[in-house]
Amino acid sequence: MSNRMWGGRFSTSPAAIMEEINASIDFDRKLYAQDIRGSKAHAAMLADKGIIAPDDAAKIIEGLDAIKTEIDGGRFTFTRALEDIHMNVESRLKDLIGAAAGRLHTARSRNDQVATDFKLWVRDTLDHVDRQLEDLMRALLDRAGEHAATVMPGFTHLQSAQPVTLGHHLMAYVEMFARDRGRVQDARRRLNECPLGAAALAGTSFPIDRHATAAALGFDRPTANSLDAVSDRDFALEALGAASIVAIHLSRFAEEIVIWSTAQFAFVRLSDAFSTGSSIMPQKRNPDAAELVRAKAGRIIGDLNGLLIVMKGLPLAYQKDMQEDKEQVFDAFENLSLCIEATTGMVRDMKPDVDRLAAAAGSGYATATDLADWLVRVLGLPFREAHHVTGRIVAIASERGVELSAVPLSEMKAVHAGITEAVYGVLTVDASVRSRVSYGGTAPDNVRAQVARWIAALG
Amino acid sequence: MSNRMWGGRFSTSPAAIMEEINASIDFDRKLYAQDIRGSKAHAAMLADKGIIAPDDAAKIIEGLDAIKTEIDGGRFTFTRALEDIHMNVESRLKDLIGAAAGRLHTARSRNDQVATDFKLWVRDTLDHVDRQLEDLMRALLDRAGEHAATVMPGFTHLQSAQPVTLGHHLMAYVEMFARDRGRVQDARRRLNECPLGAAALAGTSFPIDRHATAAALGFDRPTANSLDAVSDRDFALEALGAASIVAIHLSRFAEEIVIWSTAQFAFVRLSDAFSTGSSIMPQKRNPDAAELVRAKAGRIIGDLNGLLIVMKGLPLAYQKDMQEDKEQVFDAFENLSLCIEATTGMVRDMKPDVDRLAAAAGSGYATATDLADWLVRVLGLPFREAHHVTGRIVAIASERGVELSAVPLSEMKAVHAGITEAVYGVLTVDASVRSRVSYGGTAPDNVRAQVARWIAALG
Amino acid sequence: MSNRMWGGRFSTSPAAIMEEINASIDFDRKLYAQDIRGSKAHAAMLADKGIIAPDDAAKIIEGLDAIKTEIDGGRFTFTRALEDIHMNVESRLKDLIGAAAGRLHTARSRNDQVATDFKLWVRDTLDHVDRQLEDLMRALLDRAGEHAATVMPGFTHLQSAQPVTLGHHLMAYVEMFARDRGRVQDARRRLNECPLGAAALAGTSFPIDRHATAAALGFDRPTANSLDAVSDRDFALEALGAASIVAIHLSRFAEEIVIWSTAQFAFVRLSDAFSTGSSIMPQKRNPDAAELVRAKAGRIIGDLNGLLIVMKGLPLAYQKDMQEDKEQVFDAFENLSLCIEATTGMVRDMKPDVDRLAAAAGSGYATATDLADWLVRVLGLPFREAHHVTGRIVAIASERGVELSAVPLSEMKAVHAGITEAVYGVLTVDASVRSRVSYGGTAPDNVRAQVARWIAALG
Amino acid sequence: MSNRMWGGRFSTSPAAIMEEINASIDFDRKLYAQDIRGSKAHAAMLADKGIIAPDDAAKIIEGLDAIKTEIDGGRFTFTRALEDIHMNVESRLKDLIGAAAGRLHTARSRNDQVATDFKLWVRDTLDHVDRQLEDLMRALLDRAGEHAATVMPGFTHLQSAQPVTLGHHLMAYVEMFARDRGRVQDARRRLNECPLGAAALAGTSFPIDRHATAAALGFDRPTANSLDAVSDRDFALEALGAASIVAIHLSRFAEEIVIWSTAQFAFVRLSDAFSTGSSIMPQKRNPDAAELVRAKAGRIIGDLNGLLIVMKGLPLAYQKDMQEDKEQVFDAFENLSLCIEATTGMVRDMKPDVDRLAAAAGSGYATATDLADWLVRVLGLPFREAHHVTGRIVAIASERGVELSAVPLSEMKAVHAGITEAVYGVLTVDASVRSRVSYGGTAPDNVRAQVARWIAALG
Repeated sequence: MSNRMWGGRFSTSPAAIMEEINASIDFDRKLYAQDIRGSKAHAAMLADKGIIAPDDAAKIIEGLDAIKTEIDGGRFTFTRALEDIHMNVESRLKDLIGAAAGRLHTARSRNDQVATDFKLWVRDTLDHVDRQLEDLMRALLDRAGEHAATVMPGFTHLQSAQPVTLGHHLMAYVEMFARDRGRVQDARRRLNECPLGAAALAGTSFPIDRHATAAALGFDRPTANSLDAVSDRDFALEALGAASIVAIHLSRFAEEIVIWSTAQFAFVRLSDAFSTGSSIMPQKRNPDAAELVRAKAGRIIGDLNGLLIVMKGLPLAYQKDMQEDKEQVFDAFENLSLCIEATTGMVRDMKPDVDRLAAAAGSGYATATDLADWLVRVLGLPFREAHHVTGRIVAIASERGVELSAVPLSEMKAVHAGITEAVYGVLTVDASVRSRVSYGGTAPDNVRAQVARWIAALG
Repeated sequence: MSNRMWGGRFSTSPAAIMEEINASIDFDRKLYAQDIRGSKAHAAMLADKGIIAPDDAAKIIEGLDAIKTEIDGGRFTFTRALEDIHMNVESRLKDLIGAAAGRLHTARSRNDQVATDFKLWVRDTLDHVDRQLEDLMRALLDRAGEHAATVMPGFTHLQSAQPVTLGHHLMAYVEMFARDRGRVQDARRRLNECPLGAAALAGTSFPIDRHATAAALGFDRPTANSLDAVSDRDFALEALGAASIVAIHLSRFAEEIVIWSTAQFAFVRLSDAFSTGSSIMPQKRNPDAAELVRAKAGRIIGDLNGLLIVMKGLPLAYQKDMQEDKEQVFDAFENLSLCIEATTGMVRDMKPDVDRLAAAAGSGYATATDLADWLVRVLGLPFREAHHVTGRIVAIASERGVELSAVPLSEMKAVHAGITEAVYGVLTVDASVRSRVSYGGTAPDNVRAQVARWIAALG
Repeated sequence: MSNRMWGGRFSTSPAAIMEEINASIDFDRKLYAQDIRGSKAHAAMLADKGIIAPDDAAKIIEGLDAIKTEIDGGRFTFTRALEDIHMNVESRLKDLIGAAAGRLHTARSRNDQVATDFKLWVRDTLDHVDRQLEDLMRALLDRAGEHAATVMPGFTHLQSAQPVTLGHHLMAYVEMFARDRGRVQDARRRLNECPLGAAALAGTSFPIDRHATAAALGFDRPTANSLDAVSDRDFALEALGAASIVAIHLSRFAEEIVIWSTAQFAFVRLSDAFSTGSSIMPQKRNPDAAELVRAKAGRIIGDLNGLLIVMKGLPLAYQKDMQEDKEQVFDAFENLSLCIEATTGMVRDMKPDVDRLAAAAGSGYATATDLADWLVRVLGLPFREAHHVTGRIVAIASERGVELSAVPLSEMKAVHAGITEAVYGVLTVDASVRSRVSYGGTAPDNVRAQVARWIAALG
Repeated sequence: MSNRMWGGRFSTSPAAIMEEINASIDFDRKLYAQDIRGSKAHAAMLADKGIIAPDDAAKIIEGLDAIKTEIDGGRFTFTRALEDIHMNVESRLKDLIGAAAGRLHTARSRNDQVATDFKLWVRDTLDHVDRQLEDLMRALLDRAGEHAATVMPGFTHLQSAQPVTLGHHLMAYVEMFARDRGRVQDARRRLNECPLGAAALAGTSFPIDRHATAAALGFDRPTANSLDAVSDRDFALEALGAASIVAIHLSRFAEEIVIWSTAQFAFVRLSDAFSTGSSIMPQKRNPDAAELVRAKAGRIIGDLNGLLIVMKGLPLAYQKDMQEDKEQVFDAFENLSLCIEATTGMVRDMKPDVDRLAAAAGSGYATATDLADWLVRVLGLPFREAHHVTGRIVAIASERGVELSAVPLSEMKAVHAGITEAVYGVLTVDASVRSRVSYGGTAPDNVRAQVARWIAALG
């Protein structure tokens, strides 16, 4: 909304209100590169099919290139009276090349044009996010390899449950972001059908070649139904859905950074690059970047929700409501991109305190499960009975104020006669994590194998 | 919430509140079939790997089968004190087979167990929705084939813009639901990794064979990271995202049904099977089913939104918050399934009024675009000039109170001398739709070709 | 996000990413007037309480006024390196008045400062929306008075059910917007406690007078708890909640405008000021403004949802996440304000077609309910029996192809002997609406009374 | 959805689908008490106005009472074929009292009836939530009084910033829940207009007394517009909006409980009543109740969002979409009620570890701000310069590895010569919190005064 409107609304004329609510040039100018790219492909095809003269096409393409240069260089004057990016460009084209400009719009309409522009923008953006996620995965893989054997508490309910390794923890995010890339790539593949040539809604009687424009713009094929082509935005919804799940994953990591950065946990330390301090409280390391990454998930989900609501219950074909599709998508992806970048930075930046991690991993009878499993595995106790025996031994440790590995064998035998010296082999944190060799388990060798697998996969 | 709580809350004991908020058996009992299936696969694997005795495994499996039969038959008593489906089943198993029941939980935990159960339920449900969508596509294809040449107005802004055919309009939905099936299938494929054996969060030291249980349960492979396996729910979010987009598509069709069923449009008529009337106003045909399909999109989006919020910012690994994942998914898919079914029913049921559709298609100078295109195509006018000429001819028609095809040639020539008798060949509705032969256009032959293509694709 | 970031992200330095994600000046500059207003009140109070020298306060206030003038006039250079509006203003103040500027921040922090600024902005905005809604109500009252007796169909399920008057229909919206104003005013009243002086989170040891600053800024009182003052944003959530419900009401009216503007309904006609046409299809009147009002409800709900998500689960006190509070609120209210304005414009602009409305009101046995009620009221039939009799008479009318008022008395008597000539008095549309005299009913005199009541209430 | 449907959908008949999607009795039976209450008031008024015979009214009222008793006692058979609660009750009434039952529905319709029932339910529920919130406030006041002087760290960014008291922290929530009660009470007051008598949508020609039924049902007045009465649900949206903000506040407290219960923080301990443990890990105290309270905010926001979407863009008056209003509201409030109850329980149950809180409060130069403020207040340094001096003294403390209060005066004087022995008076945690005497500040006497103020206010 322009500021002039906000101040003195009550005297605003109907014409001013209508321009204010109707014009999209303030935001759809972001599509200029895609709009020009689409127009060039359309002009070239029109000439190839003899629908316009080769000379006119050449002039149009040259003019469009000149406009692109003007906008790139910040020398283009956008006009609200011309409403949108399409009319701004076409009007300027007429200034530059004259009457031939009037032939560009043959066999198309703004309905298929904007759908094409927007799809191109979403496609470019999905590709960008895909590369960013790959970069984030590489950062995680580097740190996971470095910390494949660094023990830390594995939490459930934010309570220490069993020891894991930091590398294993980071690799959980590699799996998440890999699935996220899958969603991004699937969305990209599914949207890759070209709406250009659907015209207003019914197709056209001109002998256009939609397969040619689709190919020229990198689409796999033209859309198969002209009404669908101009009236659906499921590609944007799917992209926002994928973005929201990425944002959820990022928010979970961000929450961990916030908690791990507290004085109480002190598991990791972020450098000044990703935290802010206080001139008088040097120990304060506010994890601003992580907090903002966490928060921005809310905004991205809000954008998804907003566009879902816009599209709900719209009859076919184009409705003006659909003009509200772009700002949600722009906002979501610009913020998502920033969040991925900041997270990659934090992953590379964070300095784990391995001593504190190890100490936390070993406290609280964290290997009680290992003891119970030993009783099942070695002595053959049923699972539920092994739990009972373990509980009694933990109680002894608790009374003596020692960890499990410091309970004398005699005391253990008093609880269950079958226990032998060998049991101490499973009661240390290192032994615990080394023992988790089941596929997907936290044993350091497993973690290293997974890191290697992913590095190979990324190439 | 149980009714007893609601009434006299203020005297409720802490224990009662905790049971009330904590117990999940009231909803997770829906997972009983999946829970038993997973336990059987787990028990068989444990025996194969020598972790439990073959006899115990046999008893366990037999007992689980018996429990399945009890629940199927409505003869099982679920107990809130046992909290969830897992403990309800295990407790009953102990009643039935005694001590051997205590060996089933070896090398697993409720964390990987519930993730497995829930994935199996979502997978079954996605398969069900996929088949329902196929059924809906077939219904649309039948009606589209029948009405490939039935003309109707093509709308933008709910204003008649250009003639299309009803078959073409219905085929737009075929495209949408086909993409929806793609999303459903992608979600299904991506979730198809088995969490079983991730144990509480770290994997296990028992020599389990996760590939075997994965295969036995129809998964493509086991999950590669135990922390990820028990703490992510992106598969549920992706499924809800896909469901929301299906719901959007259904809501659009529903809105059309509502509008088309009004006395003012009267484009289609639903039978009593899908509308309700009034005992005293026989002409009233309330399209209740369509209205409810439209409304339920709101609820499904609310479910997606709710689960996104639950998952945002949760640290790894399992947090109790994640217990709130199921009801959203159950509610969304039960309602979605009902909406698809009702829509399929309405597609098959609705009776188009072809005369009213044709009359509406022909009113309002709906072929003005055809005239303009003719001027470009035949006379070589630039697009923008052709529009100017067309506008003047439409003005003449308007003054005379006739449609375009009734404007005399002499009057047209007065506007532009080059116009010939041939122009009348594009001014009827039938000519208009027949001329839209560009790929994806509304020409009846195009529509028939698309119907044939889809029927072949569905097999 | 600045454009420079978007293009070449992979080489971005940590410092650049942090500035990009952290700086808020791109959006919080909208708070400049509120920020300066709050600082002036704070400086004056500090001087009054002897905490700073009167001379310093005078310089500070003069300097702040000068900055306000600079920003108003577009001559202020905002700097991202200074992060936010507070530091941009304070830094400029130091340029202008030197060391005294350093005394302004005594006994406050950015935490209470931004909460104060933002509350002032929300309060100003709620007041603005309240006045806009009053304006909209006045427009509706004008049109309702004009059309107190203009009959039209009353719809349920978009099917004609009983006749109402257009004035009555418009008055339904007066009721809705009046409740909306109540919500806006309640939100305004509840937020009107001043956070200034809560300092970072704990209050301060300076002998400040919070009641004085609260009064100077038009607040009813200072907030009573410093932690709450800097960490809650429920005032923004409540404002967004109220905005969302306004948006829902506007979207309903917008949907009606869209439907009523179709060729099929043609109940109202919007002038060119609020619709767009086609150069070649003069009858096409695309209700763009109404469609955008309808769509923007989605965006506003998305904003509400986004901020709810941001705030969920944040521990006290200030978290950086809360920086994400402003853009959602700015976006929602700027769009809401535009929507109210456009709707007010459409209410004043729309031209009802009273003949078509009357014809539609009378079709479809719309007075069948009146007949049934007559049978109950005059003949004393039980309600359910009266319905049965009515159904039979409607069936006769339907067979004869006439409206109810044209069914001969003899035929009616054949269905129920007690029916008399008097029955015809209730079978016309005009009689029907005139008879609905129950409080709140659609009788023209009722409508006029309600219009008068509201005009008196608004003053 | 009934289970029978889910299994074998493909063979489902249209009639079965329609019943499945259309019947609301499975959820609207919750409204039985309100439905009966409304019907009794309606019948009494009809008799008073001479519209039905006194005898009939007496029979109707007696019959309705009997039905209430049957439903209360679980002896009523609800039937899907009768669709909804209204028809289930009316049908049973006819069984019980015969033909007189057919007179009850005179001068009303299901449209005004369901709006009345639902408003009554929402009103009862808001009253219930209001009382629950008062109870929660009392629990917080008790604990705040107990811990008015218990020091703890005040956090920003989850980093220790300045000392506060636990009592002050808890009082922040008292403020929040007090505002929540304000929203609940405002919503209750605004909804308190009675729709009964609006009939289908247009009012009625029967001489009913809507003021009488409104008064009998505890409403302030009847609604003033019949169309509005049956077609708006803003009262439900406002209630859900208020519920969502309560849920946000509860989720914030829940997050704190989760963090404070970690081994790393160990600020509070929940008893077994509100946490779950592990048979083998006795130190594990999973704060399940807090996690679920946190999570359920997502669900409640999802419900709000869902109903906003349902209502968006619905034309007047009643649309079947509006049947989707109830389940969202039921779900949100049942869960909210449970969350408040569980939170009240946790507030009363939690046992703060005052030693750990004090130790945490004193670490990390938490009184650096007090030093800076002393320099401003006592020595008259400008704020920004005082910060510089403080930073240098903190650096000395950090080098020496001591807290601020242990830095020798000579070293302080070396930084700024004006510092005196008196400075030590502000450097302890206790002195810090005692000094925050500004209104709303954390000084224990302030906290006690606020507790007293609130206890007096609650009475």
